[in-house]
Amino acid sequence: MSKAFRTHDEATPLRVAVVPDSFKGSAGAVDVAAAMARGVQDAFDDHGTRVTIETLPFADGGEGTLDALLGAWGTTALAVDTTDALGRPVRARYGLSPDHVTGVVEAAEANGLPAVSDVPLRPLTASTRGVGPLVASLLDAGAEEILLCIGGSATTDGGTGLLSALGARFLAADGSELPDGGGSLADLDRVDLDGLDPRARRVRWRIACDVNNPLTGDQGAAAVFGPQKGATPDDVRVLDAGLRRLADVLAAASGTDVRALPGMGAAGGLPAGLTALLGAEVLPGSRMVAEVLGAEEILSRADLVLTGEGSFDSQSLSGKVVDAVRRLTPAHSPVVVIAGRVSVSPEDLRRSGITAAFSIARGPGSLEQMQDEVVPGITWAAYNCCRLLAHRFA
Amino acid sequence: MSKAFRTHDEATPLRVAVVPDSFKGSAGAVDVAAAMARGVQDAFDDHGTRVTIETLPFADGGEGTLDALLGAWGTTALAVDTTDALGRPVRARYGLSPDHVTGVVEAAEANGLPAVSDVPLRPLTASTRGVGPLVASLLDAGAEEILLCIGGSATTDGGTGLLSALGARFLAADGSELPDGGGSLADLDRVDLDGLDPRARRVRWRIACDVNNPLTGDQGAAAVFGPQKGATPDDVRVLDAGLRRLADVLAAASGTDVRALPGMGAAGGLPAGLTALLGAEVLPGSRMVAEVLGAEEILSRADLVLTGEGSFDSQSLSGKVVDAVRRLTPAHSPVVVIAGRVSVSPEDLRRSGITAAFSIARGPGSLEQMQDEVVPGITWAAYNCCRLLAHRFA
Repeated sequence: MSKAFRTHDEATPLRVAVVPDSFKGSAGAVDVAAAMARGVQDAFDDHGTRVTIETLPFADGGEGTLDALLGAWGTTALAVDTTDALGRPVRARYGLSPDHVTGVVEAAEANGLPAVSDVPLRPLTASTRGVGPLVASLLDAGAEEILLCIGGSATTDGGTGLLSALGARFLAADGSELPDGGGSLADLDRVDLDGLDPRARRVRWRIACDVNNPLTGDQGAAAVFGPQKGATPDDVRVLDAGLRRLADVLAAASGTDVRALPGMGAAGGLPAGLTALLGAEVLPGSRMVAEVLGAEEILSRADLVLTGEGSFDSQSLSGKVVDAVRRLTPAHSPVVVIAGRVSVSPEDLRRSGITAAFSIARGPGSLEQMQDEVVPGITWAAYNCCRLLAHRFA
Repeated sequence: MSKAFRTHDEATPLRVAVVPDSFKGSAGAVDVAAAMARGVQDAFDDHGTRVTIETLPFADGGEGTLDALLGAWGTTALAVDTTDALGRPVRARYGLSPDHVTGVVEAAEANGLPAVSDVPLRPLTASTRGVGPLVASLLDAGAEEILLCIGGSATTDGGTGLLSALGARFLAADGSELPDGGGSLADLDRVDLDGLDPRARRVRWRIACDVNNPLTGDQGAAAVFGPQKGATPDDVRVLDAGLRRLADVLAAASGTDVRALPGMGAAGGLPAGLTALLGAEVLPGSRMVAEVLGAEEILSRADLVLTGEGSFDSQSLSGKVVDAVRRLTPAHSPVVVIAGRVSVSPEDLRRSGITAAFSIARGPGSLEQMQDEVVPGITWAAYNCCRLLAHRFA
């Protein structure tokens, strides 16, 4: 792998891109990026080398994506009163780009599993209805595009709750509206779209999704993800039957057979309803974030890239932030990972194309100790990596 | 600090010197060096860059110095039956260079504190006599130079035990020979050197010593180091008086006033007797080891140096292995520290001239876990550092 640094022209500052994920549970991507940048700046200052640092808090479409985008945009979160997966009041955050074009919703702000884990789980009645007001607020603000992050849900309702909040009506054979939750969908006869908010169809939907699971079947939403949401084997059967019925009704209403599409099984089938009825696009979260933030442009001109995440392990090598950063960076520029924990093998590292990976750990210590010192630890790791690299530019 | 790498000439392999200390309690310097070298080789192999690696297990004159020298020489330890600080039988190791010129003795193999910590400590009678057979064995083998490492002792006898074993006689006023140990020295009247083994005076003595404490007084051997050897305040007074008396007798016998010399207070005053009566030279341990192993020659031609130790902290910055390695390496070649624990500040790092320091820790974990994985951990750290550096040579 030919990977020579571009020849450093003294008149042109070295360009360093700092594009990390959050360290989940420890520090958001904005803080991680700032900590890395401090280390980079200090190291190159030590050597009297001019450097231009571009920081971009990154995310993979999961938890932390809203904060990364807000950080990159320099805006703060908006909030609205809505309901959680069990219909209880909750205040949920969402985001809007400075130009009001792009909205961001982390669905879990409303339908998330942690928020309803204080009571016995109710997988059959858990609903995505509470995501509606987040979307409505963005539509009211004139957003032309909605980025929907769907991880961490408590729901298996195929998105019917959200769609109901937006005006669709999911009806039983007798014309009555079904109660919320995936448990009722087996009785679904048809969907009435007359009252669906037309803005919801005009807006461009982009759903961050990194799983390939289909909507139904033994690799589907109910079977694979139902249990962690409290579904017993009987519940799984009920929910799967409901989603099969929903797929039929969606096909009849839209012409789109969601059962043939990968990824529809994420978030309890939430992408299914939106894809069929609102024309939503499903794409890997890191790609969605990269496109929204212009990561490729920043990375393509970088001489050196620092990235990182809480745990750099074999799961990191496919499709998430580190992988996205490596793919968007020219091969001749090194990409260094700084992580809380590094547990890839040398073979994995070579295959990944990542130049080197360092933990912020500076000795024995507990996870809690490391989390307490995560920001200085990140700065120290970045500082030392860059002192090593800067040595060549003096 | 101008620190450009020398321009890499494709026809000349990059020269990497691997010159670490041991990781005390985890891995000897030979194993540490081998582990680092594996990482270096793998990283440069990944980039198809030819590299010449010279490994040199290093030490600072303390525990582990014998093994480092043996490893560098490619010889194994010799052993002899002798006595510990309390006169109990013990088998002690020592070393001899392949050309039989240079012998190495870690005095603590005989007079060490750990070996006598299974019984109540006897600071007044603890003796260096057991070091004698180690020296005699080397003299019998024809050694022309003896490197004496003195750390970790249980004794405060000014070296009188060792000198007695070599034939000197420490006499009371009535001509009787004093019993062993510093507690008897207040009764010392004179020393009789007639029976002293003449080879002991002909051989070149080099004593590794990194403390400046004088022989006597409140910064002296008894006051400062006596308590850790079990001395009560009364014992300290007795021992200090004994060493004062010894210094007077040594001055009368040799003309050398050891009380004026720094470092004589190390190892319970062991350097004092040897300096006065055998012409021993005292020098920093890392310098002694560097000179014996030709470290300067290896380091002076290195393009990149890896070193390390168990704990890289503020104490590491003065006089020990890492400091010695940095001083002997040309300023334009980076020196990287790999350690079990890194706890220097950025200011300390800059002042030290060390390019970068990395812990082998790859995430949260206990000391025991880290020690269990110390060798792969060292290899991984060296591998990643060198992948970072190798990026520029492809």
